Amino acid sequence: MIAPSAACYSFGMLIVASDAHRTHHPREPFLDRGRLVDPPEVPERVDRILAAIAGAGLGRPEPPRAFAVRGESGPAARVHSPEYLEFLEHAHARWRDATGLDESSEAVAYARPIRDQPHLDPEHIIAQLGWYSHDSDPVLAGTFGAAVAAVDVTLTAWEAVAGGRERAAYACTRPPGHHAATDSFAGYCYLNNAAVATQAWTDRGARVAIVDVDYHHGNGTQQIFYDRDDVLFVSLHADPAFEYPFFLGFAGERGWGAGEDCNRNYPLPAGVEWDTYGDALASAVTAVRKFGPDAVVVSLGVDTALEDPDTFRLVADDFPRIGATIAALDRPTLVVQEGGYCLDVLGRNVAGVLQELA
Amino acid sequence: MIAPSAACYSFGMLIVASDAHRTHHPREPFLDRGRLVDPPEVPERVDRILAAIAGAGLGRPEPPRAFAVRGESGPAARVHSPEYLEFLEHAHARWRDATGLDESSEAVAYARPIRDQPHLDPEHIIAQLGWYSHDSDPVLAGTFGAAVAAVDVTLTAWEAVAGGRERAAYACTRPPGHHAATDSFAGYCYLNNAAVATQAWTDRGARVAIVDVDYHHGNGTQQIFYDRDDVLFVSLHADPAFEYPFFLGFAGERGWGAGEDCNRNYPLPAGVEWDTYGDALASAVTAVRKFGPDAVVVSLGVDTALEDPDTFRLVADDFPRIGATIAALDRPTLVVQEGGYCLDVLGRNVAGVLQELA
Repeated sequence: MIAPSAACYSFGMLIVASDAHRTHHPREPFLDRGRLVDPPEVPERVDRILAAIAGAGLGRPEPPRAFAVRGESGPAARVHSPEYLEFLEHAHARWRDATGLDESSEAVAYARPIRDQPHLDPEHIIAQLGWYSHDSDPVLAGTFGAAVAAVDVTLTAWEAVAGGRERAAYACTRPPGHHAATDSFAGYCYLNNAAVATQAWTDRGARVAIVDVDYHHGNGTQQIFYDRDDVLFVSLHADPAFEYPFFLGFAGERGWGAGEDCNRNYPLPAGVEWDTYGDALASAVTAVRKFGPDAVVVSLGVDTALEDPDTFRLVADDFPRIGATIAALDRPTLVVQEGGYCLDVLGRNVAGVLQELA
Repeated sequence: MIAPSAACYSFGMLIVASDAHRTHHPREPFLDRGRLVDPPEVPERVDRILAAIAGAGLGRPEPPRAFAVRGESGPAARVHSPEYLEFLEHAHARWRDATGLDESSEAVAYARPIRDQPHLDPEHIIAQLGWYSHDSDPVLAGTFGAAVAAVDVTLTAWEAVAGGRERAAYACTRPPGHHAATDSFAGYCYLNNAAVATQAWTDRGARVAIVDVDYHHGNGTQQIFYDRDDVLFVSLHADPAFEYPFFLGFAGERGWGAGEDCNRNYPLPAGVEWDTYGDALASAVTAVRKFGPDAVVVSLGVDTALEDPDTFRLVADDFPRIGATIAALDRPTLVVQEGGYCLDVLGRNVAGVLQELA
């Protein structure tokens, strides 16, 4: 008889997680297509994921080490602008000063610049919130600390793979990152975890392919690497013709400058099941093979699940298929958590992907 | 004894108003510096203004004539883009189609484009709402009809002055217009009434000075005429360093291209009273005199009043002073209603300005 702990070990992989994300807990309902909804990107997501990973015998989470993420010389500043990082770190304190509201308040943008008008660098916090965001998400008192911790989680997992100690590792990140652009937050994302790790890898001379399987297009990641030929970004997602983020994620977006042909979007119709999804994933993986990366970063959203409020209809068995398809690339692989909001199946589906990469 | 009606006539001026504005009645609370507030730009504003005007013996409102405002060849299309007008006319129907919500729902933007990323013309209504707005104001089922009627009101008053039948006229417009830009709405404004009338005047060869005395900077009007030398835009307002619209309204914005030196902003600190305000207005009027306009358009906001929720502290006697200062320019003058939200003093203060121009 094999003891469960031995089984865990033999099929395990490095799992990195931290409790620091709990300081970022949005609670104010927001408008989604005219309906007020409660924020679904909540701390319990991490608890559910880690419980399922442990239950599947994939491993116990290890804590991150600190990578000195803050500041102009840190790893976040390799993909985000110094002005944006400075804003994000101090936004909530400035918000409290300007509004008289307390630590529990949520700072939300409303004023935006008029297109093509010259303007000074925004100084008032309301202007900064509008300038440094591309939707109406809040900044909380604990947002920056949580986002920095998520980058630490990501880089700790990345370092183990990049250093050759692990063939694959999982960063259990929240807040997620793939909607965060060079200098703006949105879509529950503030610092782009996958982009920071990708940049760290390219800083060591590696060519990296990012495979984004979140239900929503990874518009922030695309923007960050859009003119780069050392990073291939491929994304499968709901067609932006009907789904957030609406402005980006169309098939015609192929990169520009040196990055031409290093960006591939696979917009999919509402309601797709594995037949269609699997075909698109096969095409995406073929593009990755042609690119010939030294390493792969997976932006793992599982909001493609049938049970999620969004439109895709992937079922439990489909998530191991995603994992197996990516594992077949046979490259050092970092998996970074993005979306997935149905608490009842979120962990199961993440574990389903990871079991094939372990 | 002089009968009141005779008194009305002898000191009266052309007042143009319409009931069509009532189809635009926002009711959903919105976030203002983190606090939910009820929309203050409500139909009752017009009722209060017209009652005060009648009470002051300035005149009874005349209805507008129809100027065929809609469409690419109409007067609104001289200052707004055809794409924007097409969007605004059909936005709420598209919103209902996309969301399943009913006629009473309010269409609100949240997704915005990422800066400097290439994207297709936005086709989804959520993307269009983000693209064609510069804050988080709603579009209602009745917004476009009300905005078109406000342009009719404006042009009816304008035509009487431009045609020489009146020396001054007042357009009792709502929704207001001065935050509406070439292709975006915001700040309770959808079509820029003052800009449409100004353009109509310049289309007849006139040089026009716009004097904007609303508490908030007229950022839309500034943008529309920023490169023009046939229109001088002068605006007195709360410093955008602390007040909406935050991004524009600084003293350094002086116009560009042919329009250089044809834009003058007078940002004022919180809490100003007449001493400071009157000095700034004198400077603004001096700039108008130097420009030597053939006609003057006044963007009349009275949200500078002590009783208004905003910070300025003008009192009842100050509004006739504003009117007298502008009247001293001795030019054909069109007055267009912008802001002013304290229902108890709004009408009194509008009438106070107008009595000096009558």
